[in-house]
Amino acid sequence: EREIRLFSLNSNRPLAEEISKEIGIPLSDCQVKRFSDGELYINIEESVRGDDVYIIQSTSSPVNETLMELLVMIDALKRASVRTINVVMPYYGYARQDRKARSREPITAKLVADLLTVAGATRLITMDLHAAQIQGFFNIPVDQLLGVPLISTYFETEEFKSKDIVVVSPDHGGVTRARKLAERLKAPIAIIDKRRPEANVAEVMNIVGSVEGKTAILIDDIIDTAGTITLAADAIVQAGAKEVYASCTHPVLSGPAMERIDNSSIKELVVLNTIDLQGRECSNKIKQMSVARLLGEAIMRVHEHKSVSTLFD
Amino acid sequence: EREIRLFSLNSNRPLAEEISKEIGIPLSDCQVKRFSDGELYINIEESVRGDDVYIIQSTSSPVNETLMELLVMIDALKRASVRTINVVMPYYGYARQDRKARSREPITAKLVADLLTVAGATRLITMDLHAAQIQGFFNIPVDQLLGVPLISTYFETEEFKSKDIVVVSPDHGGVTRARKLAERLKAPIAIIDKRRPEANVAEVMNIVGSVEGKTAILIDDIIDTAGTITLAADAIVQAGAKEVYASCTHPVLSGPAMERIDNSSIKELVVLNTIDLQGRECSNKIKQMSVARLLGEAIMRVHEHKSVSTLFD
Ligand SMILES: Nc1ncnc2c1ncn2[C@@H]1O[C@H](COP(=O)(O)O)[C@@H](O)[C@H]1O
Ligand SMILES: Nc1ncnc2c1ncn2[C@@H]1O[C@H](COP(=O)(O)O)[C@@H](O)[C@H]1O
Repeated sequence: EREIRLFSLNSNRPLAEEISKEIGIPLSDCQVKRFSDGELYINIEESVRGDDVYIIQSTSSPVNETLMELLVMIDALKRASVRTINVVMPYYGYARQDRKARSREPITAKLVADLLTVAGATRLITMDLHAAQIQGFFNIPVDQLLGVPLISTYFETEEFKSKDIVVVSPDHGGVTRARKLAERLKAPIAIIDKRRPEANVAEVMNIVGSVEGKTAILIDDIIDTAGTITLAADAIVQAGAKEVYASCTHPVLSGPAMERIDNSSIKELVVLNTIDLQGRECSNKIKQMSVARLLGEAIMRVHEHKSVSTLFD
Repeated sequence: EREIRLFSLNSNRPLAEEISKEIGIPLSDCQVKRFSDGELYINIEESVRGDDVYIIQSTSSPVNETLMELLVMIDALKRASVRTINVVMPYYGYARQDRKARSREPITAKLVADLLTVAGATRLITMDLHAAQIQGFFNIPVDQLLGVPLISTYFETEEFKSKDIVVVSPDHGGVTRARKLAERLKAPIAIIDKRRPEANVAEVMNIVGSVEGKTAILIDDIIDTAGTITLAADAIVQAGAKEVYASCTHPVLSGPAMERIDNSSIKELVVLNTIDLQGRECSNKIKQMSVARLLGEAIMRVHEHKSVSTLFD
């Protein structure tokens, strides 16, 4: 009988505890401390020889710290003779640096893939990669779960049944995601098409599709400084929408994000808990839904050698 | 003609500027910034195609930040088609985690070696590795320069000619280093031999060798919290030494270090500038010597395909 072991590092312990409860497997003990000079030290407290290990860690801010914590943990497990090292990374940091947009730029999303692999990871379970192509940066199996099915349930309640809904993508890169949500809600889509008519002139927000008189639901993968999403919401209201909701998988919410959301025409912002928001001053508009069941289910399926792909929709 | 290019990242710019002046090669421009969420962004401002690149970066505190900065830079250079990527790392962070001292510990010094290599480093030039074996963690060439010859010159001046010197190793792990310094100074050595006579009893500092009436010079590779070195100094004074100097290559000096040095019987502490101390509140006892000439010379020799090994003594 193969033993399954769950470990949590420090980026998102509340989620790890929820996952643990969900699947009835306790979190194993490991000591993560810092020496006086700031160097990380990890020691695993129980024998893990021959075990299948799942490490729950989002590489959210402070990303270099959470990433190194994960790499050092993988190294320790590898040397402790585990059977497999499955990294459960609800949020994949550095995913936006996924290509050379300019000469002499790094592709840090690929660097992260190589770092995880050389450290000893044997599988990655993650959610909504900024680009699905990041799966191809790895030579180990990658399971990518999507946030849309969960986000969709928020808008499938009675409250929304009577509304005339349109799902809006805040940019042309997110149309596929918007379409997935729209299909579930049996709603049409619209797209914000930002254009700079001339150099040194402010961007113009064109809306492709009709939002007039409707309840608009914006959807994105990551909301970071919230600039794009709040400008999009304003443009939608300007175009005659009745109300605007927004949603995303990964609530990065850095810098001016909370203030911008508070001051925007967004009525509610539905986010998942791939990134821990506990202990942060949050806008009242934010509604957080949990991915614990989804990730717990994925872990159990992987452990039982079952397909995870049906969890995708 | 192969072009040589020097880059500095953020951990020790004063040293990089000194090296640049020393060898008459300007520092090339690269932009290191952070996005709002703390993710690093690097962009190299000039073409580096076909060049031999030297990146100067100590992985000193905050170690996870300085290390990631280096890895992202290496990735960017690799994708910019340079010929070689030579990492000049005066101080190698995580070097003390060089073996499993307990079960289920990581060997982070080896992890760091693998991270540098997978990112694309083709050579490492470093100083006083905590264990020389770390060279074997790499499959790329490693040049390790030693601090002893430079430190020695401080104690070869007229002031010290008339003194009756003994070089003291603060522990049995450092005897080889102490012997190297002692040979140069034509002085005998002594060793502090810490023993715990019984469990739950304070350690006893035995001194192997004679220090009575002498000028003792303690030497270590790293001084971190300064606990070991200041206790050693006290023990040496207790044993009848006339005065105590201390020295090390890498002044980590974290936590209570400065206070301990100030309050100790150490007369002067001679350190190198592998780690930047500018902008820190330093004890007046600290005398810093520069490794710029040594590293500059090493860079030029590597570039000219000459041996670096004669720089070792
Ligand atoms: N953490 C970050 N915050 C903001 N922008 C980023 C971040 N990481 C990468 N980028 C930039 O965002 C762009 C990619 O975004 P996108 O066009 O939405 O895929 C690239 O030009 C990156 O340089
Ligand atoms: N940054 C650090 N600060 C203090 N101790 C450390 C650090 N990194 C590793 N160590 C520990 O120091 C010991 C190695 O020191 P040494 O015996 O001098 O080689 C190991 O047991 C490590 O766990």
